[in-house]
Amino acid sequence: MSEPAARTRITREPQLAVYDRDAAYRILDEGFVCHVGFTLDNQPYVIPTSYGRRDDNLYVHGSAASRMLRNMKQGIPVCITVTLIDGLVLARSIFNHSMNYRSVVILGTAEVVEQQDEKIAALKIISEHVIPGRWEDARQPNERELKATLVMRVSIEEFSAKVRTGPPIDDEVDYSYPTWAGLIPMETIARSPIPDPRLDPARRVPSYASNYTRRR
Amino acid sequence: MSEPAARTRITREPQLAVYDRDAAYRILDEGFVCHVGFTLDNQPYVIPTSYGRRDDNLYVHGSAASRMLRNMKQGIPVCITVTLIDGLVLARSIFNHSMNYRSVVILGTAEVVEQQDEKIAALKIISEHVIPGRWEDARQPNERELKATLVMRVSIEEFSAKVRTGPPIDDEVDYSYPTWAGLIPMETIARSPIPDPRLDPARRVPSYASNYTRRR
Repeated sequence: MSEPAARTRITREPQLAVYDRDAAYRILDEGFVCHVGFTLDNQPYVIPTSYGRRDDNLYVHGSAASRMLRNMKQGIPVCITVTLIDGLVLARSIFNHSMNYRSVVILGTAEVVEQQDEKIAALKIISEHVIPGRWEDARQPNERELKATLVMRVSIEEFSAKVRTGPPIDDEVDYSYPTWAGLIPMETIARSPIPDPRLDPARRVPSYASNYTRRR
Repeated sequence: MSEPAARTRITREPQLAVYDRDAAYRILDEGFVCHVGFTLDNQPYVIPTSYGRRDDNLYVHGSAASRMLRNMKQGIPVCITVTLIDGLVLARSIFNHSMNYRSVVILGTAEVVEQQDEKIAALKIISEHVIPGRWEDARQPNERELKATLVMRVSIEEFSAKVRTGPPIDDEVDYSYPTWAGLIPMETIARSPIPDPRLDPARRVPSYASNYTRRR
């Protein structure tokens, strides 16, 4: 448990705060979509995108022409947030309704991955983060595609995580209120893979697709 | 289909752009967690929170003491993004891998809902957006709780939506590449409700909990 910097210290409901790096990385590894925040002409933008983590770096990629990544290239500050929703918390009082969730907020500056070897390695990290096993099975990027792709690295230094689990917490006086209370668990699941209509019907679904899960 | 403002015009993959208000509202109504972006001392922050929509307004709420809402109270620009993930798109080439998703990005300024009647109405909109039917069944906010709650309204004026559906689109030359291709559909589902350990076991689960779904 490291001491949080002022900007990432959890001020609301501090009992939910998690500053432990391993716990934050478990959240980052279960998720695969982040929301990247950046500011342009005083206007914040929040854009969803996939990502990958390796060690203390988080990678995102996109078109070399995208507004988001073009601006990140200039080294402006970013905030990357990953949120996993685990359920709805129904308390007796509306006020104490909540959600069970796990989230990580990273503050940092995105740097362009320029060197070709590291760029390919980063694309593999993102690919294997989203669909482990896919990289070796697909046609890997060629020169033209690498050129059209911008890869950004954010060093995971300043971060915080927040985790809520468990049943509702009501005011003691409300426990006798005549209503149902508890959790509606929620989960993001994968369904059976759907082959591309142009795929040879004889080709079998790989196990990384048929057994796809975010559980880590 | 209205003409998008420059800041919300989709510049990447414009074929995915949806500027139709009804289509955007269907996405907002299926989602229940947004990511709110705001900027503070040049640092963007992206915070997940629940929300509700009614007509052309989006409401978020939180503690009157939260950093996010305290800053929104000052009327700084915000970006509110809602993202629904529908699946992973496995192309033959890594480059053409993608996701099926629906997202809405709203640029605006959050205003504090000060008037008590509107504040209660907004809390009901959020509650009914997240769990339709719950408001009447729970103990509604009292004076003290209303005072401790900050409610913000964002007028949905400047927005854009992006939708990707369907199979992978590969370069024509790659269709013969010897690998599986297709979709892994993904869905966020609700599991069976779990009663609070302190609940009277005789109390039955309400249908809005046992049949909970985000499908709209």
